[in-house]
Amino acid sequence: MAKYSIILGNLGNTCDRFLSSGYKDALPKEELIKQASQIEGVKGVELVGTWDVSSDNVDKVGEMLANHNLQCVSIIPDYFSQKRWGRGSLSAKDPEIRKQAIEYTFECVEMARKLGCTTLNLWPGQDGYDYVLQSNIALERRYLMENIREIAKASPDINFALEYKPKEPRNFCFMARASDTLLLAKETALDNVGVTIDTGHAFVAGENVAESIVILQEYGRKLFHMHFNDNYGHWDDDMIVGSVHFPLFVETLFWLRETNYTGWLSMDQYPYREDGQGALAESVAFLQMIESRLTDGVMQELRDLMNRGNAVESQRWLRRTFFK
Amino acid sequence: MAKYSIILGNLGNTCDRFLSSGYKDALPKEELIKQASQIEGVKGVELVGTWDVSSDNVDKVGEMLANHNLQCVSIIPDYFSQKRWGRGSLSAKDPEIRKQAIEYTFECVEMARKLGCTTLNLWPGQDGYDYVLQSNIALERRYLMENIREIAKASPDINFALEYKPKEPRNFCFMARASDTLLLAKETALDNVGVTIDTGHAFVAGENVAESIVILQEYGRKLFHMHFNDNYGHWDDDMIVGSVHFPLFVETLFWLRETNYTGWLSMDQYPYREDGQGALAESVAFLQMIESRLTDGVMQELRDLMNRGNAVESQRWLRRTFFK
Amino acid sequence: MAKYSIILGNLGNTCDRFLSSGYKDALPKEELIKQASQIEGVKGVELVGTWDVSSDNVDKVGEMLANHNLQCVSIIPDYFSQKRWGRGSLSAKDPEIRKQAIEYTFECVEMARKLGCTTLNLWPGQDGYDYVLQSNIALERRYLMENIREIAKASPDINFALEYKPKEPRNFCFMARASDTLLLAKETALDNVGVTIDTGHAFVAGENVAESIVILQEYGRKLFHMHFNDNYGHWDDDMIVGSVHFPLFVETLFWLRETNYTGWLSMDQYPYREDGQGALAESVAFLQMIESRLTDGVMQELRDLMNRGNAVESQRWLRRTFFK
Amino acid sequence: MAKYSIILGNLGNTCDRFLSSGYKDALPKEELIKQASQIEGVKGVELVGTWDVSSDNVDKVGEMLANHNLQCVSIIPDYFSQKRWGRGSLSAKDPEIRKQAIEYTFECVEMARKLGCTTLNLWPGQDGYDYVLQSNIALERRYLMENIREIAKASPDINFALEYKPKEPRNFCFMARASDTLLLAKETALDNVGVTIDTGHAFVAGENVAESIVILQEYGRKLFHMHFNDNYGHWDDDMIVGSVHFPLFVETLFWLRETNYTGWLSMDQYPYREDGQGALAESVAFLQMIESRLTDGVMQELRDLMNRGNAVESQRWLRRTFFK
Repeated sequence: MAKYSIILGNLGNTCDRFLSSGYKDALPKEELIKQASQIEGVKGVELVGTWDVSSDNVDKVGEMLANHNLQCVSIIPDYFSQKRWGRGSLSAKDPEIRKQAIEYTFECVEMARKLGCTTLNLWPGQDGYDYVLQSNIALERRYLMENIREIAKASPDINFALEYKPKEPRNFCFMARASDTLLLAKETALDNVGVTIDTGHAFVAGENVAESIVILQEYGRKLFHMHFNDNYGHWDDDMIVGSVHFPLFVETLFWLRETNYTGWLSMDQYPYREDGQGALAESVAFLQMIESRLTDGVMQELRDLMNRGNAVESQRWLRRTFFK
Repeated sequence: MAKYSIILGNLGNTCDRFLSSGYKDALPKEELIKQASQIEGVKGVELVGTWDVSSDNVDKVGEMLANHNLQCVSIIPDYFSQKRWGRGSLSAKDPEIRKQAIEYTFECVEMARKLGCTTLNLWPGQDGYDYVLQSNIALERRYLMENIREIAKASPDINFALEYKPKEPRNFCFMARASDTLLLAKETALDNVGVTIDTGHAFVAGENVAESIVILQEYGRKLFHMHFNDNYGHWDDDMIVGSVHFPLFVETLFWLRETNYTGWLSMDQYPYREDGQGALAESVAFLQMIESRLTDGVMQELRDLMNRGNAVESQRWLRRTFFK
Repeated sequence: MAKYSIILGNLGNTCDRFLSSGYKDALPKEELIKQASQIEGVKGVELVGTWDVSSDNVDKVGEMLANHNLQCVSIIPDYFSQKRWGRGSLSAKDPEIRKQAIEYTFECVEMARKLGCTTLNLWPGQDGYDYVLQSNIALERRYLMENIREIAKASPDINFALEYKPKEPRNFCFMARASDTLLLAKETALDNVGVTIDTGHAFVAGENVAESIVILQEYGRKLFHMHFNDNYGHWDDDMIVGSVHFPLFVETLFWLRETNYTGWLSMDQYPYREDGQGALAESVAFLQMIESRLTDGVMQELRDLMNRGNAVESQRWLRRTFFK
Repeated sequence: MAKYSIILGNLGNTCDRFLSSGYKDALPKEELIKQASQIEGVKGVELVGTWDVSSDNVDKVGEMLANHNLQCVSIIPDYFSQKRWGRGSLSAKDPEIRKQAIEYTFECVEMARKLGCTTLNLWPGQDGYDYVLQSNIALERRYLMENIREIAKASPDINFALEYKPKEPRNFCFMARASDTLLLAKETALDNVGVTIDTGHAFVAGENVAESIVILQEYGRKLFHMHFNDNYGHWDDDMIVGSVHFPLFVETLFWLRETNYTGWLSMDQYPYREDGQGALAESVAFLQMIESRLTDGVMQELRDLMNRGNAVESQRWLRRTFFK
């Protein structure tokens, strides 16, 4: 079985632009951590900067994780929830903001070290633009790459997993798709810079997740991390895994194993109106249900199916293998 | 179990704009009909005008159907495959074309009568526009409604099921969504005018099929017919049912039964590169797998789930009920 | 020239799910009203419940509007920014919530009367569902219609303009498209219930706005109100009008005049990182630029173009008429 | 002014899956070439294999082009219109088909040499898959890269411009997005392999064309060719340029000049029901209208606008600069 983790904030309150105070009540951090530890199969958590962890509370948070036998899988620096990042962080037009973003990221590197965590999951969601003619695209993309290179070069003990998403909160984000982001990672020429796939972000990008996995692994083993959720294909609805799609999750888990991905399968959702713990637990259970079928024998059956490419046969195989 | 049917042409050759001669070889009509009759659970076929049936061969086609114990479920008038309809049929700007479209539809009514078929499935795919400022929208929509009313009023023994689709072959089709088309049907004020849902068309329209079923049934029991296929949500890919989505087909079959839909479940696909018979058979098998779980007890469980509205619980129920 | 208005909150702070405290600073209400009054051509404002107006401050707000010579064009009841509406308002499963929603709407009717405002723009954005099997769709849609009917029947001096949007904040909203919402309006059988088109919501729904206008006007003169903004076609980006599209706004203004729409053209945007006043002013200027070209002579030219339906000719006409 | 060209077949008959015989009548090749030569500003044509040019008629076609003073801008090998390519060409599972695809491409190289043409525009539209579990993605993507490398390495006098498109005719094409295709081009490690942007394909991929230009130019000056058309953002509608969008074409032309793109601006449309010559001429006129405004002074104004990033200011500038 793969290693399963969750993003801590998924268990807490979640808001949107219309209900900014959130749909639920905020819970104490220790309660969130306890809930995470109770989800069957979950051994790790990801912590979002500001929301979950900061230089001030990192030791305390580390203790709580230890108390509940949870590993810190990644820190996700907060490049998005503060007014100062509203027009970008690592690629902002304002040099002072870029400087602050670099310094803050180094701070996150320190937090990671304190927590024995080896991955920073970078999602610079505010880095991009909303309108045409609003960005000096060439220059600002260069800022982004150079700043990531500077940080990663100075932190060889940490892996930097770049998470892409086509849009939201910007109409166009610079790290938009698997291959765009891989190009940026490769441009740094550093082994410790790779890519995170969020399945929902990939759907919105029109990608078949399995193919994104293959591209990242084939061009330099650059798949560093996985976030799981489901959506209707048009927006990052951040739903329970399996609540919309089914066959593609089989193909996704097949290629993760086939390309020897050994990282975490992390749940990343926004259960606005749902019980967070339940939503994450159900997602893990769904993926484990699929994973448990992927024995060595079944892996070979799948290879054979793919090499024949007969869709009728594959659909029949899916129905007979998975459904009662 | 519901009544299952297929569209005959799905078994034959299929082309697109790049490979206009088609991906497969054309088969003799009798062979198509024989193949249809061999699909487990299928008792009826739909015939497309020109492609499958015309005034000239209707008797012969009727014999073939009888020989293979198949019922003619509907005739789909050909409003799309001839140059004369290229700029519209029942709503064309040219009055001569509108007249021809009306006459041709009456011809199809006659064919239906000869075949003991009580439904015309109208899909005027060329009726719409591609560019802004290209259509006198008010006038042309009125032509469409009036001409359908004229035909349906004169043919009270035939049901006219209006099939909607947001785009293709026009960038904007006049019968675009469930509710647009229901409004048009109601405007005729005729009991024998209703609506066909094609699941794939509904996905492209951004509809939840279950809700479209409810709307059509609640506002006057106007769901006349169902076409089934699957796609990725952005285009009418016309794929095997269940090859992309799963939970929504459960909800779809629930609401068909809950609203006492007694019509056919018809497979409508474009298996460009697949074995047509296999693609249709697999689709039927997938739907029957779901349908067979929907016992009276399960129907009540579903009602209870919907009334509680707890998504975590519903997803868990789906996983435990359907997956091994 | 048409009557132009804006939504007051567009001038203030705007947030999203990642930056919940907002991208800008909050301004005093009087400052917002003053800014609105300064936008060239703007004579009215729309007020959102809770955010802009409540029973407690309605008199004070009325004074401010009077001081700045602004008319209250509509009140938009707050069905979305409070935790109690998080799972729906007028169609909530919980009868107590539905009751509160009705009472609150009557409160808004009173506010409108105090402000000499004749329109309530109802956008029950939380009414819908996120997951399949989460809603008793038939029952909840009925609640929505019956409650709107009850309120509107008791308030014959007020027009109720139902604003549709396919998704956000729910993955599926019950008032999703022009025709769905028109059906609901017609089901009330009340003259004072109609529909609001938000151009951006219509784009997301895949609608051509011009055709939505025609449908609403042809089936009973039910277009009650217009909200304007632009987006990239996939999400409600709420951008400056004309920043993405051009020709369709010409067609939109043509059909508004052609169908004798005499209501307001109201700007509804989310200028997250922009100067709000500037964004709204530029949108008004863009629409007025188009409107000023639509002389009686040009209206006739457009009718002729539409009746000929020659896209090459229409595009040439657009280029020569509008571009330098 | 940039160099403008068109794809010859755009002037002829065009079909779709419903009207496979096409919406118009086929014209003699010489008539198509004559029509191309009459479009103001057009100096070159692209020829599609099989449809427009083959080894058998290449000399004759060359004469016709010379007679009408037209340059052959590129040859687009036919990897899509023959049954043998229905399941892929350069990446087909069947080694015999891959071999034929390589041989045929070398044939096209020869045709290009005979016509004094230095570019092959490769669009292997059938290379991809429709269903999950249908492709050995890693292996088949490798075939594609290796075969292109083999061909390009053996033909150093020819540039190979790889044209991407997310879907159609396959639900997932291997050359799907700008960056995916750039990665493949870079993997060949050959200077004569680059990328073609088709603006409409980029819209469907959710790309901002300007950013795709920047990515291709920044990572190795790999933008080899440009195809122009417009669409509604969801499908490759292949419409007249400017019929949907406006501001983005300004940004597109800015970045082409800013990154010193010196290739052709080629019109690539499917004027199904339109006069082909008119559709192409209007597209060229629209782009030239924009281009003629982009003086050195305006280029500097645009740089300043982009560096400030004030969307209100940019939209005002666009309105005042371009509209009457």
